[in-house]
Amino acid sequence: MTNPSLWSPAEARKLIRSQGWDKPTSGMANGYIQANLAILPKEMAFEFLLFCQRNPKSCPIIDVTEPGSPVPQLSAPDADIRTDIPKYRIYRNGELAKELTDISSYWNEDMVGFLLGCSFTFEEALIKNNIPVRHIQENRNVPMYKTNIGCVKAGRFEGPMVVSMRPMKEKDAIRAVQVTSRFPSVHGAPVHIGNPEAIGIKTINQPDFGDSVTIKDGEVPVFWACGVTPQAIAMHVKPEIMITHAPGHMFITDLKNEDLAVL
Amino acid sequence: MTNPSLWSPAEARKLIRSQGWDKPTSGMANGYIQANLAILPKEMAFEFLLFCQRNPKSCPIIDVTEPGSPVPQLSAPDADIRTDIPKYRIYRNGELAKELTDISSYWNEDMVGFLLGCSFTFEEALIKNNIPVRHIQENRNVPMYKTNIGCVKAGRFEGPMVVSMRPMKEKDAIRAVQVTSRFPSVHGAPVHIGNPEAIGIKTINQPDFGDSVTIKDGEVPVFWACGVTPQAIAMHVKPEIMITHAPGHMFITDLKNEDLAVL
Repeated sequence: MTNPSLWSPAEARKLIRSQGWDKPTSGMANGYIQANLAILPKEMAFEFLLFCQRNPKSCPIIDVTEPGSPVPQLSAPDADIRTDIPKYRIYRNGELAKELTDISSYWNEDMVGFLLGCSFTFEEALIKNNIPVRHIQENRNVPMYKTNIGCVKAGRFEGPMVVSMRPMKEKDAIRAVQVTSRFPSVHGAPVHIGNPEAIGIKTINQPDFGDSVTIKDGEVPVFWACGVTPQAIAMHVKPEIMITHAPGHMFITDLKNEDLAVL
Repeated sequence: MTNPSLWSPAEARKLIRSQGWDKPTSGMANGYIQANLAILPKEMAFEFLLFCQRNPKSCPIIDVTEPGSPVPQLSAPDADIRTDIPKYRIYRNGELAKELTDISSYWNEDMVGFLLGCSFTFEEALIKNNIPVRHIQENRNVPMYKTNIGCVKAGRFEGPMVVSMRPMKEKDAIRAVQVTSRFPSVHGAPVHIGNPEAIGIKTINQPDFGDSVTIKDGEVPVFWACGVTPQAIAMHVKPEIMITHAPGHMFITDLKNEDLAVL
């Protein structure tokens, strides 16, 4: 078997669809955009889309399926969001009910799938710019925190922004702003640099989600809006059913990272 | 009466609301974003929002009202989209039915208002960069053309992109790409530079909408996606009722042009 980083998105999805891969997708099909998934009932789709529209840093939309269609027409027209992700989570009334590798039996004509940008794309851009990404170096999940930054409300959807944190040298932080500004569709520029308390984070070495990472002397924490935000907020609304990817088990699109660069 | 260009957005809207101004808004409240308006029944709101999401160059969203609320909460929280535009158009089943200065009597709890970016913002940026804007110099409306560039379909909404054209020196065209790339919320970078036939425009001096302008020797036509696109496309769907601003009679927001710059 060849190196998964060299697979095409279609090859990766085919293996996943045939139940030949149920692990995280990090490092697969390098250079292609991977996306978070949130499936909601059509009745909530307008409000959720509006929420994403109003909070583009937390909820950068890559693609939205037509109601009832499992095909992400813009980002991977030969894919099926019911089978092409290695692991899914079913939430009932806001509670995790099940983890599984194929959601075909849960799908119905009333469902709308949202694919939202994830940080893999901009981390690849940071690394290309010689900015080390600590949680990758330490082989951990990125540390994530609830903040006191309110998202802009849309209908029933409201709540605080969740951020991810990457520590780096101060000079690298400036370059990181430039590099990630090119990619508004995958969270874009940081939302905060420096003092964690200013955005309501009391204990930087105790993240609310993910793992703690080392912050070295002379490094500053840099915070980006995180794709966990929309899922956390949708959960508060307690939809009768909501289906997401399992953390780290992303949808691999046919779009290249550079396709999303605005400059 | 002071110079309208110096009025605050709130002052301008107050005069408009009190029926003291029914002329175009070009040149009012300089430096503030003006927006196109499209009001649609809630039943179409998800599809139209999705259409805008999929066609951000033609349909850059500035704000969307909550269903039934006439208040653009993000862009002008003390405004009312039913009264604060100098002239409106009511379309019934895709046909222009009426032009009027206050739509309060047409408003109902089922309506959603979309405010979409317009080219005034990037024209101001072009002028600041010493790039002359011909139709302003010649005191005409910008020339607009139907193209063979298809918009990305969303539900019932589909059709060709309408573009606006500004002729300029070739060296200015390069700077114009840079300048307008900073403003994706008001159409962003051009969609085409050069040969009109390549995008299905047969006769450059016979625009489909607006006025013809002079193209001088050594100038190249530069085409931007135009805010007429979403209205033209919504019209094809023949909504029972659709309300828009009258051309040139825009909604003045509290947002500054620079608020929309991505860089």
